[in-house]
Amino acid sequence: MFKIRMLVAAIALTGSLSVMAADALPTTAPAPADNPTTAEKVTLGKMLYHDPRLSSTGTVSCASCHNTMLGGEDNRPNSMGVNGQTGGRSAPTVWNSAFNTVQFWDGRAASLEEQAAGPVTNPIEMGMKSWDDVVARLKTIRGYRKAFDLAFGSDSETITKDNATKAIAAYERTLITPNSAYDKYVKGDADAMNEQQVRGMNKVVELGCTSCHSGPAFNGPGVFQKFPMHPNGYFEAQYHISKDKGLAEVTKKDSDAHMFKVPTLRNIALTAPYFHNGSVPTLEKAVRVMAKLQLDKELSDEEVADIVAFLNALTGEFPKQEMPVLPGTPGVTFNN
Amino acid sequence: MFKIRMLVAAIALTGSLSVMAADALPTTAPAPADNPTTAEKVTLGKMLYHDPRLSSTGTVSCASCHNTMLGGEDNRPNSMGVNGQTGGRSAPTVWNSAFNTVQFWDGRAASLEEQAAGPVTNPIEMGMKSWDDVVARLKTIRGYRKAFDLAFGSDSETITKDNATKAIAAYERTLITPNSAYDKYVKGDADAMNEQQVRGMNKVVELGCTSCHSGPAFNGPGVFQKFPMHPNGYFEAQYHISKDKGLAEVTKKDSDAHMFKVPTLRNIALTAPYFHNGSVPTLEKAVRVMAKLQLDKELSDEEVADIVAFLNALTGEFPKQEMPVLPGTPGVTFNN
Repeated sequence: MFKIRMLVAAIALTGSLSVMAADALPTTAPAPADNPTTAEKVTLGKMLYHDPRLSSTGTVSCASCHNTMLGGEDNRPNSMGVNGQTGGRSAPTVWNSAFNTVQFWDGRAASLEEQAAGPVTNPIEMGMKSWDDVVARLKTIRGYRKAFDLAFGSDSETITKDNATKAIAAYERTLITPNSAYDKYVKGDADAMNEQQVRGMNKVVELGCTSCHSGPAFNGPGVFQKFPMHPNGYFEAQYHISKDKGLAEVTKKDSDAHMFKVPTLRNIALTAPYFHNGSVPTLEKAVRVMAKLQLDKELSDEEVADIVAFLNALTGEFPKQEMPVLPGTPGVTFNN
Repeated sequence: MFKIRMLVAAIALTGSLSVMAADALPTTAPAPADNPTTAEKVTLGKMLYHDPRLSSTGTVSCASCHNTMLGGEDNRPNSMGVNGQTGGRSAPTVWNSAFNTVQFWDGRAASLEEQAAGPVTNPIEMGMKSWDDVVARLKTIRGYRKAFDLAFGSDSETITKDNATKAIAAYERTLITPNSAYDKYVKGDADAMNEQQVRGMNKVVELGCTSCHSGPAFNGPGVFQKFPMHPNGYFEAQYHISKDKGLAEVTKKDSDAHMFKVPTLRNIALTAPYFHNGSVPTLEKAVRVMAKLQLDKELSDEEVADIVAFLNALTGEFPKQEMPVLPGTPGVTFNN
């Protein structure tokens, strides 16, 4: 009760009552009306998600950069696509991505379905020339026919771009990590977080981190946020923070300059390195840089340690997953 | 009984009684005296096998080329390692590799343990500079300490090259695909193979394919075989058969020229393209080329179709595998 009272006190201090009293992470994710989640779609989506034959070279799958055996990404600063090519951004975690309002760092996709279509034909990611080529290849792989028909009925041609991305999105909606120490704590287990983690949680509220990172996934209530809010030559130079214009790279509007999707803080202890460009190697540094660039505050070593301890309390339980068995190929031709 | 009688007749015809009457594929593999298989080693080995952070770029794991979700390889002619580099050989399947006497196409590794050490520091495969670097990196990944200690005791430093390769080999010894149609057939279920498959099996014996491809894994009794046995300019030119000197590339002895490990025929329908260099895209062509180059025989279309039908009966049951949960990284540095 003492801890709970401290929490309430901290919340009262900032007026962000809804923030830290947010519900625990839901165990199921909402699905769009035109793509209800079904077991058959999830089965197919899991196959497609892990199939490197969706890339030009046959070596890069969705899971290569958004690794479901890891924290949902690749631990690299910038992901590496076909033929060793790298882009300028760090792969966001796929875990709990169902709770993002938009997808990609610049939020250019409005849904998981739309996101899933992108990397496959990006020349430096999965490198396929077109989705027509992807569909043609899937049709040559015996075994996919049945999986698509089971997921989407067999009255018409089911192996399509639309169905492939729907299946992948349906699978991604199952990638949820509940039961973190924080979740247990907000459900009433006062011992689930230790004193340092509670101190860190209160500090997060007090500082105002929660004005952007609140809600069950700690990624709202807003969708986008400017980064950096408070220019700082030292950090910006050291971590190349301002090189990437975020949403403005897509819209070309000045008003969108440096606007990024607010990322979830769930499992953040597992997803180093940090930020849109993966430039910050440790969580300690990331916390310090965020406080300075977003809130214009300098944290003591103790405050940083407390916040990092709290962020570790956001590591959830990873559901057991059976490996998909991918259908064999009689003769797919890959690019070198 | 009719089919069984046909089988016995075919065997009697060639005198290869032990060949087609071979036992079904065992469901467990023997382990060396200094590396008995334990659940803890298998758990650790499965993690290491699927961890791309064992490569210089953090993008290539053992499973990238020997994909446990696929037929145990990558469906590519030549595998692709770090930075899009390719070698001259096709990845052999990891499924049932525990039943190989030697490993690699040129048989240069005497055990799975020895094999596992190779690709990690091969500059065009996983690209690590040394196993010392691998061990140093594993020590920075929280979570591996516990897994190594559980597998190898905690009295001394357990994160070593020797233990890592032992764990990987222990995991690989569990990758067995029993209960193919052929296995059911030899166990007495006469309906497990159809008539065409039985015809194909008899043809395989009659032709003498089994002089190299016999035993439960269809990869013995000999260990090495010369390829091609019967020079053929057309096929050799078309498929670059003789460019690779096989074992002689390692030993530099003329007597080892073009000697290759006899590969298993288990699951061969799933592992196109074929041969040491992956030059032959389909099983039909592979059967025709082998008959000509190894036995100096030209097959009719019907004979090829029958043999391919039989080879499809060698596709086994893939055991259900849970995905490993790889420990998160606080700050590993990868090469670009």
